[in-house]
Amino acid sequence: MQRLEERIRREGKVKADGVLKVDSFLNHQMDMAFLGELAQEFYRLFGDCGVTKILTIEASGIGIACMTAQAFGVPALFAKKTKTKNIAGEVYTSQVASFTHGVSYDIMVSKEFLRPGDRVLMIDDFLANGNALLGLAELVKNAGAGLIGAGIVIEKTFQPGGEKLRRQGIRVESLARIRSMSVERGVEFY
Amino acid sequence: MQRLEERIRREGKVKADGVLKVDSFLNHQMDMAFLGELAQEFYRLFGDCGVTKILTIEASGIGIACMTAQAFGVPALFAKKTKTKNIAGEVYTSQVASFTHGVSYDIMVSKEFLRPGDRVLMIDDFLANGNALLGLAELVKNAGAGLIGAGIVIEKTFQPGGEKLRRQGIRVESLARIRSMSVERGVEFY
Repeated sequence: MQRLEERIRREGKVKADGVLKVDSFLNHQMDMAFLGELAQEFYRLFGDCGVTKILTIEASGIGIACMTAQAFGVPALFAKKTKTKNIAGEVYTSQVASFTHGVSYDIMVSKEFLRPGDRVLMIDDFLANGNALLGLAELVKNAGAGLIGAGIVIEKTFQPGGEKLRRQGIRVESLARIRSMSVERGVEFY
Repeated sequence: MQRLEERIRREGKVKADGVLKVDSFLNHQMDMAFLGELAQEFYRLFGDCGVTKILTIEASGIGIACMTAQAFGVPALFAKKTKTKNIAGEVYTSQVASFTHGVSYDIMVSKEFLRPGDRVLMIDDFLANGNALLGLAELVKNAGAGLIGAGIVIEKTFQPGGEKLRRQGIRVESLARIRSMSVERGVEFY
């Protein structure tokens, strides 16, 4: 998606530790009009799939998931990372190994909101190692719901996440696909 | 706001530990059309205040903050709870004592996205003890930005948060104000 690539080129910052910061518009500060455009693109890609629910993981995916849910006219649901007082009772859980934090954590959603009849589109800001998305896919599977696919804003194709998901038969659509990136040369797209 | 009170009566669950769960539409599963209505109400209340930025805290406030930012045509910004690789460098921080988790934690926003010229509306799903909002207000103060007020979806008026904020001169507008609640009698509003 050209407008996204342009915006990443203009505002993205490649850090020495391999992190691409796009927090001026995507996942810290959020440009809602622009996120709305990305959401429309997800709707163009998945709009004919009978999606009943958008699923993401806290916290950085929530903004784009909300806009996508609005575009589809369905609820958004975000998996929570720790068990709090607010999520008691019946939940589906799975475990995610975090690249960013270097630890594993549990994610969960209430069984009430993920049902066998649901057709779930996973949405996230980044796809790198794929562990968060695999964890979400497991929640969908545990619920007996249908998994339509994954809509990703930025895929780092030089990391194994995309291949892991596609090898499991999951349809992955990424709006920007990064071929390589470095502090010196910046970001190169496919 | 009557439609909100009706929805809380219909779907809200009062737990024995004093938690009101409204996670079918507000802060786990999110009904975007309904959150859009709440956002329009915040716009009615604060639309003439020259707001330039919506500020919230991860994770449960992000959905309503995004819809409110969309209604105002300004960016949303969410304070992050822990220092991750994705937030390096120059940040404003403050400390929040958490009622839900029973511990203190730091919140932070990038200095890049909170400027002296900003006029900030804080948005959150709940106001109870007010610590999260006080932490956000401190971030705004540290940035030298203007604080327009706080837009709250549900205020528990029997807890001290609202009074703490108003005593500091902060304008607080809550769309539903709970007078009392219990497992037996449910929720009573003002």
